[in-house]
Amino acid sequence: MSKSIFSICLFLLVVAGPVFAQGDFMALMPVPFTNVRMEDEFWRPRIDVNHDVTVGHCLDWCESTGRISNFAKAAGLMDGKFEGIYFNDSDVYKVLEGAAHALALRDDPVLDRRVDAVIEKIAAAQDDYGYLNTYYTLVEPNQRWTNLRVRHELYCAGHLIEAGVAHYEAMGKRTLLDVAIRFADLIDSIFGPNKRHGVPGHEEIELALVKLHRMTGEERYLRLAEFFVEERGRPNGRELYGESLQDHLPIREQTEIVGHAVRAMYLYSAVADLAGINGDAGYFNAMDRIWNDLTGQKMYITGGIGVWDHHEGFSRGYDLPNEKAYAETCASIALALWAHRLNSLYADARYADLLERVLYNGILSGVSLDGDKFLYVNPLASHGPETFNTSGGKEGESKQHRQHWFRCACCPSNVVRFIPQVGGFAYAHDEKDIYVNLYVASHAEIPLSENRISIRQETAYPWDETIKLTIEPENTETFGVLLRIPGWCDNARLKVNGHKIDKPLMEHGYARIERQWSAGDAIELRLPMPVRRIQSHPNVLPNMGRIALQRGPLVYCLEGIDNGGRVMDISLPDNSRLRAKYKPNLLGGAVVIEGKGLRRIDRGDPDRLYRDAFYETEKQKVMAIPYCLWDNRKPGEMVVWIPRHPSLSETEIEENP
Amino acid sequence: MSKSIFSICLFLLVVAGPVFAQGDFMALMPVPFTNVRMEDEFWRPRIDVNHDVTVGHCLDWCESTGRISNFAKAAGLMDGKFEGIYFNDSDVYKVLEGAAHALALRDDPVLDRRVDAVIEKIAAAQDDYGYLNTYYTLVEPNQRWTNLRVRHELYCAGHLIEAGVAHYEAMGKRTLLDVAIRFADLIDSIFGPNKRHGVPGHEEIELALVKLHRMTGEERYLRLAEFFVEERGRPNGRELYGESLQDHLPIREQTEIVGHAVRAMYLYSAVADLAGINGDAGYFNAMDRIWNDLTGQKMYITGGIGVWDHHEGFSRGYDLPNEKAYAETCASIALALWAHRLNSLYADARYADLLERVLYNGILSGVSLDGDKFLYVNPLASHGPETFNTSGGKEGESKQHRQHWFRCACCPSNVVRFIPQVGGFAYAHDEKDIYVNLYVASHAEIPLSENRISIRQETAYPWDETIKLTIEPENTETFGVLLRIPGWCDNARLKVNGHKIDKPLMEHGYARIERQWSAGDAIELRLPMPVRRIQSHPNVLPNMGRIALQRGPLVYCLEGIDNGGRVMDISLPDNSRLRAKYKPNLLGGAVVIEGKGLRRIDRGDPDRLYRDAFYETEKQKVMAIPYCLWDNRKPGEMVVWIPRHPSLSETEIEENP
Repeated sequence: MSKSIFSICLFLLVVAGPVFAQGDFMALMPVPFTNVRMEDEFWRPRIDVNHDVTVGHCLDWCESTGRISNFAKAAGLMDGKFEGIYFNDSDVYKVLEGAAHALALRDDPVLDRRVDAVIEKIAAAQDDYGYLNTYYTLVEPNQRWTNLRVRHELYCAGHLIEAGVAHYEAMGKRTLLDVAIRFADLIDSIFGPNKRHGVPGHEEIELALVKLHRMTGEERYLRLAEFFVEERGRPNGRELYGESLQDHLPIREQTEIVGHAVRAMYLYSAVADLAGINGDAGYFNAMDRIWNDLTGQKMYITGGIGVWDHHEGFSRGYDLPNEKAYAETCASIALALWAHRLNSLYADARYADLLERVLYNGILSGVSLDGDKFLYVNPLASHGPETFNTSGGKEGESKQHRQHWFRCACCPSNVVRFIPQVGGFAYAHDEKDIYVNLYVASHAEIPLSENRISIRQETAYPWDETIKLTIEPENTETFGVLLRIPGWCDNARLKVNGHKIDKPLMEHGYARIERQWSAGDAIELRLPMPVRRIQSHPNVLPNMGRIALQRGPLVYCLEGIDNGGRVMDISLPDNSRLRAKYKPNLLGGAVVIEGKGLRRIDRGDPDRLYRDAFYETEKQKVMAIPYCLWDNRKPGEMVVWIPRHPSLSETEIEENP
Repeated sequence: MSKSIFSICLFLLVVAGPVFAQGDFMALMPVPFTNVRMEDEFWRPRIDVNHDVTVGHCLDWCESTGRISNFAKAAGLMDGKFEGIYFNDSDVYKVLEGAAHALALRDDPVLDRRVDAVIEKIAAAQDDYGYLNTYYTLVEPNQRWTNLRVRHELYCAGHLIEAGVAHYEAMGKRTLLDVAIRFADLIDSIFGPNKRHGVPGHEEIELALVKLHRMTGEERYLRLAEFFVEERGRPNGRELYGESLQDHLPIREQTEIVGHAVRAMYLYSAVADLAGINGDAGYFNAMDRIWNDLTGQKMYITGGIGVWDHHEGFSRGYDLPNEKAYAETCASIALALWAHRLNSLYADARYADLLERVLYNGILSGVSLDGDKFLYVNPLASHGPETFNTSGGKEGESKQHRQHWFRCACCPSNVVRFIPQVGGFAYAHDEKDIYVNLYVASHAEIPLSENRISIRQETAYPWDETIKLTIEPENTETFGVLLRIPGWCDNARLKVNGHKIDKPLMEHGYARIERQWSAGDAIELRLPMPVRRIQSHPNVLPNMGRIALQRGPLVYCLEGIDNGGRVMDISLPDNSRLRAKYKPNLLGGAVVIEGKGLRRIDRGDPDRLYRDAFYETEKQKVMAIPYCLWDNRKPGEMVVWIPRHPSLSETEIEENP
């Protein structure tokens, strides 16, 4: 971020505080990503690649696939038919939101102009009443608002609003924001308690309206968001859409996570926003139940969610197939959004634990290191692109191997808007305390009542266990610094100014250090990162007898390229020593896990499905890489859950090293 | 079978030989089930239960669900609306076919009258032109033949024809046969090369028309069957139905097994019938490719096929989930029909091997021992009815646990018509040789040119390895007796009249014994049945590190009730000795497999999906039962593929027995 923008944002935050107020019932206020300068070797390069490659890549694809020219056509600026899927407008909005966040972090006049040019077409496509949806304008002009279940007008409007807010926050321009406001006003004039009833088939506008409310202070947007949330599961003269669209029961009566994963997460994100504002106990209780169901039974170890391809959603508890995992990138992103909101609502580290899990695993796997290839589906095992193509192949594309784009391009356009915001998950505060949720080399500016606190983190996290935080309050003051002790960490150690703190006060997963802080006070936190073997709940049948490797927040996988081509036939003896090793030249620099495994020798006739069991194995050096880095090289097999080899004797595995 | 019926059938067979001719290009002629008297303790009780319980049970349900009164309503004999699903007529036809086969084996005047009463209603529902479909007559009288893809008119007609043929063969009555012929004639007047083009969405009528041709000698039915088969994959002015209905390519160009499993098997059964008549090399080659694809990549160890619930069909190769296996009972039955036809076409034992596999496992699992409860879906692992209900729950019924009936009742009605015919798979012959395909205590009468051969098998197969065959030719003659040596058997031993035959001539999986046979000559065949540990092709990911138990033709499973309630957490050390033991009072008498296993001790927090791996186990006596017998007692967990425990030392597992 350029210094000037950094200062402007800080000014806005401090001066315009009430406009950004999150809600009276929120325990914490997140520190916006514009106040956090990422200085690390893990996220900073990804944020740069997102700015330098992904934003432009997505804009190029939005152009070449007609997504942008749909606006020009709807505006009458060019001839031609609508191209693509009826919700393609949303991709353009999401990419613009990503561009805006990127511009909030770093000046880029070329990108700024490109964004303005797209906005110009969008604005031109809006009709005099504020309506804006290129599919309806070009294809079914007389059918507006007739198919809320499927056609996604309100979903697209939600992304327009988010983009408008982001663009205004980044650039101070009202061009896109005003378009969004006009459309929001039109929608507000149509839908509501004494107006038309109905809910969007794809949630999204609810959380967007809360954002718009927060930015503008306008109560109507908040009421409309509440209306859409409250309407779910209530017929009110319409047919309910059922579980797959979370429209089976009123929110307060919902007990399980069901249906389409992204939609559910967007919905509950809005519920969390509203709960923070209205304090509704029914919302809190419903979210608690749903959270417990989700995390206790329906989530991959990567934080991936939604196992089924046919409705992109949840199955029954413990139904977590690996190779057929859908675990859409968008769903992981949406889970992070919800988890972050819950962390702010409750000031409880367990939500940040999950945020970290999905951030470092299920989300990051969605984008290639070079920033222009994506995974839509994030399986936990793969036979590689040639042989595995059942899941997600609806549109004739293999979603199992990185693609430059997808016909349904929700995932790339979600990645591009998400990555720049990662710094915004790192810190939060209330009136008297500062919370550190993510460990990442960074510099944050945090307002605390009348004071302003600068925090610098120095760490090579997630590769290394040591974190040094230097606290620089503008004025010496007594307050708490609450450090998240990750759920994966058994033996955290803490020093303040070199003095060991043996038993820090623990509060909902945070170690509280309350003292008078002066400029230069330093905290040293060590989060030991042994390689851990993880097993699943025994009800997860495909993982029985298998383990996953985890170190720090990172889940690991075996990829063919590092393990002699095949990984499906590798097992890992329980007594095989596993060593973490940093490889600076691998995949942008990464800690890998090395050990000795066994490869099953298959001498069976490849034409025979079933043969007499044959137990010969050979030794195989095993190297695991972080799951988020898979499919960045030669494509091939990949597996997260590795079969155990329970009890080979030490000599058997350790001889002839 | 009563003696009088037995004689009539034999008379028909010998005198009316040409009517039963199967085709010039068939290597073998199967010996019809009416010529085989089952005298064993495995199949005979099942055939009796089918007659005494299942037939009546299915007729009762056909009555109580309105399936039979639909005919009365269509005939104007009673008022009321059509009830149930649009293809419910087919269930009635299938149950009648089953009743007919039962009557062919044993006199039963009460059942005979009940069948006649149903036939009366069916005949009354047929219109003057021969049309007969109660759904269309009652619901959409003006929409006949407008939705071949979905509405199953031709499918229902096929089952009517099969029932008519069976009823005539069993009882010598033309009542149902004439109805079928009138409808077949009407269909023949509508569809054909120079008439209307089109194919049924659900194949079945093709093989039925071949049966009708064989019975009547009428060429038109053969031509119409050929037409429907040839039309598949050819647009001819209509939209193709695609892979899911095997309508993507002309038959001769098809290379893989795709789409709905039952439909595919019925189609290829008709292709096999036609190939036996027309010798078309394109048909043979296509079937070879499809067979290899099916058996090499897309079949469960039980012979179950079709893994997906949403289209009841095939997935890609090696995609064989256990708990979510669909493996519809109908599909297993249909596979048996095709395999039997291929065995007759090629005189190759490998087809009979597969027939045996699916017969003793994937088909028999479909019906309870008491004959009035059924499985639609045949998973290879189950959490039991309470927790497992994803697959096959389309109609709000758990298809994972035995039910008395299903809204879509294809499986019970297929079981009831299949079971009586099992004896018909046991023997075949050509002009000079007799083939024994199934080992079962039985007495068969087989015509061989001018001679007539009686064979008596004495054996407790599948529980015991010893089979004694006594050959009683009417006239002493030199001919071959070809005994299938099952693919699962490594070390078959053979004696003729007490003399060991060391290296019998092997022909396509059969041991040929050619000699001059006189009355009383005896063959003793021993097929050793050690307990075998089976593993899958390494591409079948869910089975990696797991073994299945097989003994003789039977695949085994662990059921909760025999193993301390839970089986998902049991593993089997490689060196655990497994013993086969006959238990006369268990499940009608069965050989079980006993051994020592290990149970994983789970001390994890049940609310946590992922925990540190914890390797404690305790010893657990393990008892496996034949898969076909599962879910006949208290419902609960079941698993076929058991995790290996590779290398516990002998002392560790064998101490304190």
